[in-house]
Amino acid sequence: MPVVHITRRERFSAAHKLSRPDWSPEKNYTTFGKCSNPNWHGHNYELWVTVVGEPSTETGFVIDLSDLGRIMKERVIDLVDHKNIDLDVPFMEGRYSSTENLAIAIWEQLEEHIKELGGRLHCVKLQETENNHVEYYGG
Amino acid sequence: MPVVHITRRERFSAAHKLSRPDWSPEKNYTTFGKCSNPNWHGHNYELWVTVVGEPSTETGFVIDLSDLGRIMKERVIDLVDHKNIDLDVPFMEGRYSSTENLAIAIWEQLEEHIKELGGRLHCVKLQETENNHVEYYGG
Amino acid sequence: MPVVHITRRERFSAAHKLSRPDWSPEKNYTTFGKCSNPNWHGHNYELWVTVVGEPSTETGFVIDLSDLGRIMKERVIDLVDHKNIDLDVPFMEGRYSSTENLAIAIWEQLEEHIKELGGRLHCVKLQETENNHVEYYGG
Amino acid sequence: MPVVHITRRERFSAAHKLSRPDWSPEKNYTTFGKCSNPNWHGHNYELWVTVVGEPSTETGFVIDLSDLGRIMKERVIDLVDHKNIDLDVPFMEGRYSSTENLAIAIWEQLEEHIKELGGRLHCVKLQETENNHVEYYGG
Amino acid sequence: MPVVHITRRERFSAAHKLSRPDWSPEKNYTTFGKCSNPNWHGHNYELWVTVVGEPSTETGFVIDLSDLGRIMKERVIDLVDHKNIDLDVPFMEGRYSSTENLAIAIWEQLEEHIKELGGRLHCVKLQETENNHVEYYGG
Amino acid sequence: MPVVHITRRERFSAAHKLSRPDWSPEKNYTTFGKCSNPNWHGHNYELWVTVVGEPSTETGFVIDLSDLGRIMKERVIDLVDHKNIDLDVPFMEGRYSSTENLAIAIWEQLEEHIKELGGRLHCVKLQETENNHVEYYGG
Repeated sequence: MPVVHITRRERFSAAHKLSRPDWSPEKNYTTFGKCSNPNWHGHNYELWVTVVGEPSTETGFVIDLSDLGRIMKERVIDLVDHKNIDLDVPFMEGRYSSTENLAIAIWEQLEEHIKELGGRLHCVKLQETENNHVEYYGG
Repeated sequence: MPVVHITRRERFSAAHKLSRPDWSPEKNYTTFGKCSNPNWHGHNYELWVTVVGEPSTETGFVIDLSDLGRIMKERVIDLVDHKNIDLDVPFMEGRYSSTENLAIAIWEQLEEHIKELGGRLHCVKLQETENNHVEYYGG
Repeated sequence: MPVVHITRRERFSAAHKLSRPDWSPEKNYTTFGKCSNPNWHGHNYELWVTVVGEPSTETGFVIDLSDLGRIMKERVIDLVDHKNIDLDVPFMEGRYSSTENLAIAIWEQLEEHIKELGGRLHCVKLQETENNHVEYYGG
Repeated sequence: MPVVHITRRERFSAAHKLSRPDWSPEKNYTTFGKCSNPNWHGHNYELWVTVVGEPSTETGFVIDLSDLGRIMKERVIDLVDHKNIDLDVPFMEGRYSSTENLAIAIWEQLEEHIKELGGRLHCVKLQETENNHVEYYGG
Repeated sequence: MPVVHITRRERFSAAHKLSRPDWSPEKNYTTFGKCSNPNWHGHNYELWVTVVGEPSTETGFVIDLSDLGRIMKERVIDLVDHKNIDLDVPFMEGRYSSTENLAIAIWEQLEEHIKELGGRLHCVKLQETENNHVEYYGG
Repeated sequence: MPVVHITRRERFSAAHKLSRPDWSPEKNYTTFGKCSNPNWHGHNYELWVTVVGEPSTETGFVIDLSDLGRIMKERVIDLVDHKNIDLDVPFMEGRYSSTENLAIAIWEQLEEHIKELGGRLHCVKLQETENNHVEYYGG
């Protein structure tokens, strides 16, 4: 049976900063530049989640996009949208909020729940601005 | 010789519904939600076709994009643009018009004709709305 | 007090055709081309609604965007999304579904309800494809 | 002489919240919803500034876009990019950071300086997310 | 009868430079910066043409978009696409190819021909890059 | 340690033509069509460079995006922006300026310098117009 990749996009708006508490403000600024602003900044993040699998002969679906959307909302969007990634998001505790780390954490939030729906998580793509994004394929 | 992927986008606007004739309206609604509306709905689909190969030393081209565009138009766009995918499109007969199935059928429409041009079809990407798309790599 | 324009976008996917029942298929085709396909076609429409007014000194808002969004959903999106504009939409009865006519009808659906919220409807912009859109300013 | 409108886009990423200090958290939440999150959220803002005037017979320019860009950077972008609009931005002191109020304040930052370049500020358009934006024409 | 604005987009790719032949290379560089590169540079221009009028009671159209598209192609796109604006385009002879001047010239190319179709040209919008565009309303 | 792909976009505007000096104008036109216009044409190119690696435990970064941006600017953008690819760009000497060849040459400009920063170049994606782009993965 042929295998197809299917992708759904969701969006969230959040505050964060790049700043290690164990470093001085000077070292944070030297390393992270304007991203270290103590009073935070923020972004409109765009999140694409790709699931791979064989389309069902019954429905033609790899995964029901409304199920995928629900999981993305419950496990990610509801927890990060209009939040501070560094202060409000349990699944980011103990991690610096680089886009790379955020994508890895989102993968961990989703992988098992997508498996329960019969799909296999293939890629988490996370865009921070129109000029930069990351992709994580699970390891 | 280096191998390069080249992609061309075309667009089409079509009607369809997700609804199995052997199911009751209720079961169709439970499974496919608003996509099962009996009187159809529709989309502006975006189609990206990616061909892979070595650039010609004579022209610098993997494939002439006007040739690729012509094949996409003759084999796909002319058959689906301003059509009803479920009623008007011979290459979709006997298939439910999920985006997954439509991408697979488009692959079958294109593969041989791209080979005749000396290219190898790599990916059919089909976007139904700005929030969802599928990719099919041929198996 | 300064006056500001505020715009909210919503989207819907719908089927339609351009075809007068009192004309022959040939005359419809001559006039409307592929848009007259008897079995319908469809689009992802994008709708921008612009309201003008003075920002409230209490909230800084011309209009609460969640109120505006709710009205757009109740009065427009819920009635046209995943529908057939020519068969399923009461507010389009007796009108040909050109983008122009659809924008005028959407204005009529919204104007009073926006007034009740204390705003003034300024513009309905409706995009049918990335290559064409209309704007209606109310007369 | 003909009059032409010319527009330049710049972008900035910033944190903010909608929350009045003289209101209870409950009233702020009832009024501003998730935008009142105490720990802030943020956006990628897009800013379009439109200047109107007659093109110079010497250069064909209404205004030199590099001059306009410099003023936008010095008077707006450098003050808000990677900042907290409510805590870090002098020109927003004493104003709630609704998109409406932010657009008005940006107009005030720019108007005189564009006049000094021989242009006339026509519109400040500010987009907060892909689904909402405001336009301010100066009164 | 209500009046509606309808807009069609076309695109073209062209070379040009900003450089007065009666000025020295130094003065051109001081005035026009990198845009004065003697060997040209180029852009993907996007052109939106807006026509205003009453929708026909017979068709629902302000103007037939295929007629508008044909005029835009014959009078503008075919003359500038894959051309050098400064060397190959008769309607730009004697004008510096600033975006402002190009928009004015496009207006002159279109105005009469749109009138012959029963429409009234309202706006020529011309985008040079994602960060800048001009709008011309005819005087 | 998990591996993440990170991508940065830059843009440039350049002139070029597709035309072999050892061919007649007729043969060039037959092969390259309007792209062979002797007086050049041009594009707004978009360039996405993807680097793959493990995020640093110290910063959370695969690569510092400001370092990647600096290399892209120094090694590519400064050499091609507002230039003629066929006349002004040393790294394109002796190559026809097809998008394929340009992407390969950009890879060669970047690979070593990204390695020096501790990253591994994964993909150069180059878009010539909204309807076509190429991707090069290094061989």
